[in-house]
Amino acid sequence: MNMKRSTPQITEFDKIRDKLLPHHSVDCVILGFDGIELKVLLSKWDQLPNWGLPGGFVFTNEDLDNAAIRVLKDRTGLNKIYLKQFHTFGNTQRRSEEEIHNLSKFLGQIDQSIMDWHQKRFVTTGYFALTQISKVNPMAAPQETCQWHSIYHLPTLIFDHSEIIQKALENLKMQLNHPYTATSLLPQKFTMSELQKLYENILNKKLDRANFQRKMLKSNTFIRHEKRMDGSANKAPYLYSYDRSNTPDLLGNNLIF
Amino acid sequence: MNMKRSTPQITEFDKIRDKLLPHHSVDCVILGFDGIELKVLLSKWDQLPNWGLPGGFVFTNEDLDNAAIRVLKDRTGLNKIYLKQFHTFGNTQRRSEEEIHNLSKFLGQIDQSIMDWHQKRFVTTGYFALTQISKVNPMAAPQETCQWHSIYHLPTLIFDHSEIIQKALENLKMQLNHPYTATSLLPQKFTMSELQKLYENILNKKLDRANFQRKMLKSNTFIRHEKRMDGSANKAPYLYSYDRSNTPDLLGNNLIF
Repeated sequence: MNMKRSTPQITEFDKIRDKLLPHHSVDCVILGFDGIELKVLLSKWDQLPNWGLPGGFVFTNEDLDNAAIRVLKDRTGLNKIYLKQFHTFGNTQRRSEEEIHNLSKFLGQIDQSIMDWHQKRFVTTGYFALTQISKVNPMAAPQETCQWHSIYHLPTLIFDHSEIIQKALENLKMQLNHPYTATSLLPQKFTMSELQKLYENILNKKLDRANFQRKMLKSNTFIRHEKRMDGSANKAPYLYSYDRSNTPDLLGNNLIF
Repeated sequence: MNMKRSTPQITEFDKIRDKLLPHHSVDCVILGFDGIELKVLLSKWDQLPNWGLPGGFVFTNEDLDNAAIRVLKDRTGLNKIYLKQFHTFGNTQRRSEEEIHNLSKFLGQIDQSIMDWHQKRFVTTGYFALTQISKVNPMAAPQETCQWHSIYHLPTLIFDHSEIIQKALENLKMQLNHPYTATSLLPQKFTMSELQKLYENILNKKLDRANFQRKMLKSNTFIRHEKRMDGSANKAPYLYSYDRSNTPDLLGNNLIF
């Protein structure tokens, strides 16, 4: 059961349309990890068949980044989470005529002005957000469902949203050399084997345990805490947290020179 | 002396304004290497004090990427050159009121409709292009100058164009682990020491010669040709070319796992 959002209902759309930039939207690839699988938050209108990314429009007096922050807060209730712009999608054919027709027909039952709006061309800027699934209560509009889906078992998606998710994952992978980014998907304290499981899930491959830990600890950005006691004291693993007081040189860290 | 462009003159702007997406532009960071310095192509209206990136607007029936390709061809005459989208700049304050005023005042002498157009808010998508300076004839509009400038000695720039250039350079640096990207800045055949000089200029630091060559040749993407004969046959260096039949896994190559 989804909580309902407090943002403007679509029946009120005509009150805000003149305050929005035409032709530009933002879409958020909100990624979460439940300890087992990397998942993405998707939403669906109950009367339409396909799922899509949570997205929104940009107010004329609003920074583009702030539009993404607003969408994220509307959908997850969170505002202090990792968020990064990764690409802008501007093909004229990114939304098929049939899909625009179906969406407009559905929205037109509620509000004529939002139907017209959606028939325009939209360039969309993609942002990806990283969070822990347990922290989020996905929030949907009326007649809408919002749910986590495994990135390896995605349903059919509207428009170019499948491409947008793939591009977000490529971007996430490129930032894995340094633990700064990936640790945003974990609770504050975690074991090295939990971190490794996350990396393996993102990269979709097994990693060597000793090699992984050596590379991670070499970054000198972890704080070691007590052991996680679970009965077998001998083999109890240390808990770590990422030291967020170190602003990482993500750029330099990627360079082999 | 610049060649003059064949694209629509600004006095004809009112004929095309309804065919353009409002509020969205593209800006191109066109980078070139002359064997000594990395340079960026900038343009300036003769009556205005500051330089800016070559940019343009997006036709309603034109893919965003194609708008960047068009701007690039207008300014350099080239169309088969390395071009990559790197970031979209969407702050409401990215163009100062004073600068918009000055630009509008100047353009208003030529055409009222383009003056109004420029007073709107614009979100701009940045692309960077890599080329060889010798291949380019910078092309300017009437009352405009278009010139190469060293990235380490930039003049005062309009709007947020300084930030756009810095972001483009960061993006270029992140792609240096694999020679695919940087070799786009060199002639077809080059010596390893010419390639090293390019890397040193982009990174703004000296690199160890043996270490550099070992890492480059490890990529297995170079074709070795004849030696460059310059009199001292003993020490004549080999010429190499980048084997563009190999599509690089730029993503995988950046990963240490």
